Amino acid sequence: MSDSSKEDYSDYFEVTPWKVEGSVDYARLIKKFGTQEITDELLEKFKSFTGELHPLLEHKFFFSHRDLDWILNKYENNEKFYLYTGRGPSGMVHLGHLMPWFLTKHLQDKFDSNLLFQITDDEKFLYGNKSMEEINRNVYENILDIIAIGFNKSKTKIIVNSKHIKHLYSTSLEIAKRITFSTAKSIFGFTNSTNIGMIGFPPLQGVPCFLPSILEGRPTPVLIPAAIDQDPYWRLTRDIAEKIGFYKPAQIHSKFLPSLQTVGKMSSSDPETAIFTTDDLDVIEKKISNTFTGGQPTISLQKKLGGNPGVCSVFSYLKYMFDTPAESNERELRCRSGNLLCGECKNDLSSHSTSFISIFQQKREKAKDLVSEFMYSEDR
Amino acid sequence: MSDSSKEDYSDYFEVTPWKVEGSVDYARLIKKFGTQEITDELLEKFKSFTGELHPLLEHKFFFSHRDLDWILNKYENNEKFYLYTGRGPSGMVHLGHLMPWFLTKHLQDKFDSNLLFQITDDEKFLYGNKSMEEINRNVYENILDIIAIGFNKSKTKIIVNSKHIKHLYSTSLEIAKRITFSTAKSIFGFTNSTNIGMIGFPPLQGVPCFLPSILEGRPTPVLIPAAIDQDPYWRLTRDIAEKIGFYKPAQIHSKFLPSLQTVGKMSSSDPETAIFTTDDLDVIEKKISNTFTGGQPTISLQKKLGGNPGVCSVFSYLKYMFDTPAESNERELRCRSGNLLCGECKNDLSSHSTSFISIFQQKREKAKDLVSEFMYSEDR
Repeated sequence: MSDSSKEDYSDYFEVTPWKVEGSVDYARLIKKFGTQEITDELLEKFKSFTGELHPLLEHKFFFSHRDLDWILNKYENNEKFYLYTGRGPSGMVHLGHLMPWFLTKHLQDKFDSNLLFQITDDEKFLYGNKSMEEINRNVYENILDIIAIGFNKSKTKIIVNSKHIKHLYSTSLEIAKRITFSTAKSIFGFTNSTNIGMIGFPPLQGVPCFLPSILEGRPTPVLIPAAIDQDPYWRLTRDIAEKIGFYKPAQIHSKFLPSLQTVGKMSSSDPETAIFTTDDLDVIEKKISNTFTGGQPTISLQKKLGGNPGVCSVFSYLKYMFDTPAESNERELRCRSGNLLCGECKNDLSSHSTSFISIFQQKREKAKDLVSEFMYSEDR
Repeated sequence: MSDSSKEDYSDYFEVTPWKVEGSVDYARLIKKFGTQEITDELLEKFKSFTGELHPLLEHKFFFSHRDLDWILNKYENNEKFYLYTGRGPSGMVHLGHLMPWFLTKHLQDKFDSNLLFQITDDEKFLYGNKSMEEINRNVYENILDIIAIGFNKSKTKIIVNSKHIKHLYSTSLEIAKRITFSTAKSIFGFTNSTNIGMIGFPPLQGVPCFLPSILEGRPTPVLIPAAIDQDPYWRLTRDIAEKIGFYKPAQIHSKFLPSLQTVGKMSSSDPETAIFTTDDLDVIEKKISNTFTGGQPTISLQKKLGGNPGVCSVFSYLKYMFDTPAESNERELRCRSGNLLCGECKNDLSSHSTSFISIFQQKREKAKDLVSEFMYSEDR
């Protein structure tokens, strides 16, 4: 049983590209950001292209979008789209980071899409206190994770901003010229004490939205699978896309995998809140045994009152990463009725996680030989 | 005689990197910018290294500095300095642009200095309405002018920002991280409607201050000869230099060669205000015949009252570009006493200018074969 079984959360939450705090109300977030809910109807349309729905769609871990219907119509009319996603290399990669990448791989396989994967080492240097050396080490480690996902080598290019800046710069100028400080301030909350590198940065994250059109020599649709905290960047890019002759990038937004310790997003800077792909297996077991659950303080209370899977990190991990929808529904029923104790769920998560990470780490090892083949270009 | 002989200027003037307006009071500018006057004592010290003083120093066309004394002391103690200057390729090059380059060449010859010459094509794209294609054409034409100055090929490297961005980017991040919006705003006057490219740009202009230290692998002094309107960039760079382990760049600031038509700086965007290195010789003659002078409205008034060389563009051009100090003094005396008519000065300027430009255009032609040798690097 968890020590911390209170269910009474304040309804405060905050979601920006640099901070996710509080218990996120995703329905409110859709309204706040002005995105669209992924409806059952849209999922049906999706299924007509992909066959079975990916669990992350079926579970509605991906819950929100911009122009997903439009991009599927384009595809239907033989206009193939690029995928674009990214990684801010602030630390090692944890399971929360992998979720959008899983869906990205699924989309690449089903739609035979090219993928641009941007690593924003510059932003992570500008925001925070890490040295470029430390960030460079993270970049390398993160690239191993990206490759370990299993993306199609011949259709995937990893862009590291500081390494590939010459391929990005002229397009970033086209974007930057069309964004006033006032617009950027209202979207990102910049203040007088924000450094000018951060203020100048957003256009670079917009560039891969337009790079496919430049590479293909014609307007090319782009779909971005990413956690919803990154939406402000694309909102900005969408605002100016048509002014410079490109399609607006479409997006599909995920929720956050919760922290192991409390509500909110996992954090690379607090290792206890997350399972990292580089964690030793015994460390993972220990983290899971200490995880926050939705269970009652005692076994007898749990049997009497049942638990609350809605606030349980263990339940979320199992649901989004390992259970089938049917398994997850049954788990929820058993928990709520008091017929499932937290220990069993923790055991399930522990065995699934260690098995998954163990295989993933083997893939990471093999990835070391593939780094240069995945890079956008190897020139320096 | 000029039609426009009024001497009653308002004392309004404004000097920023993007605008020079009004009749510049250089003594006030020194106070406003917080720079140092180039004193006769400092010029004596200069002479001890260079022998004869360059006319632009003797005439005090270069009138202000930061740490020029320091960098001469460094040189005396066997620490050689790099030179760094630049060009914003908003149009063709005119005589006003050449003045700091003349002194830069003189300094390169006398102090055997390496020179970095930065072309800020990105800034000129971000500020204003020119297309990148138009700016690229300017870049090429401007490079011909730079080479035609006669810089030492083996000690001069031209950096074109968008072309060489990968050599600049990581250092620009180090600078950008240490400049808040509030600091940049107070120095450059950024507003809510400034585009975020302009706000993010200043660090790139700072990079060549530090590049010599990176290239040499040890702290290396840098001296920047430039018109004083560019001082804000270096002020910003100086503020953070020591925080990242570099010397503050020293500077030597020139005045502006006046417009041919009125007070203020010449402008590439108004061709009548300036003599361009690409002008046909008959165009130059025509421009000079229409030039604003300090003369009286009629010949008889000129003979009676004398002219005012202090507000005369023709006099300034002759003084700073073609007359020896002795010739210029005599010209001034003859003008003030009514013994010199504007026609004679215009004739002098016309024959000097056409002769100078004619030779310069031959050098520009030869420069076409040297472009790649002068580039910072030829990789793309």
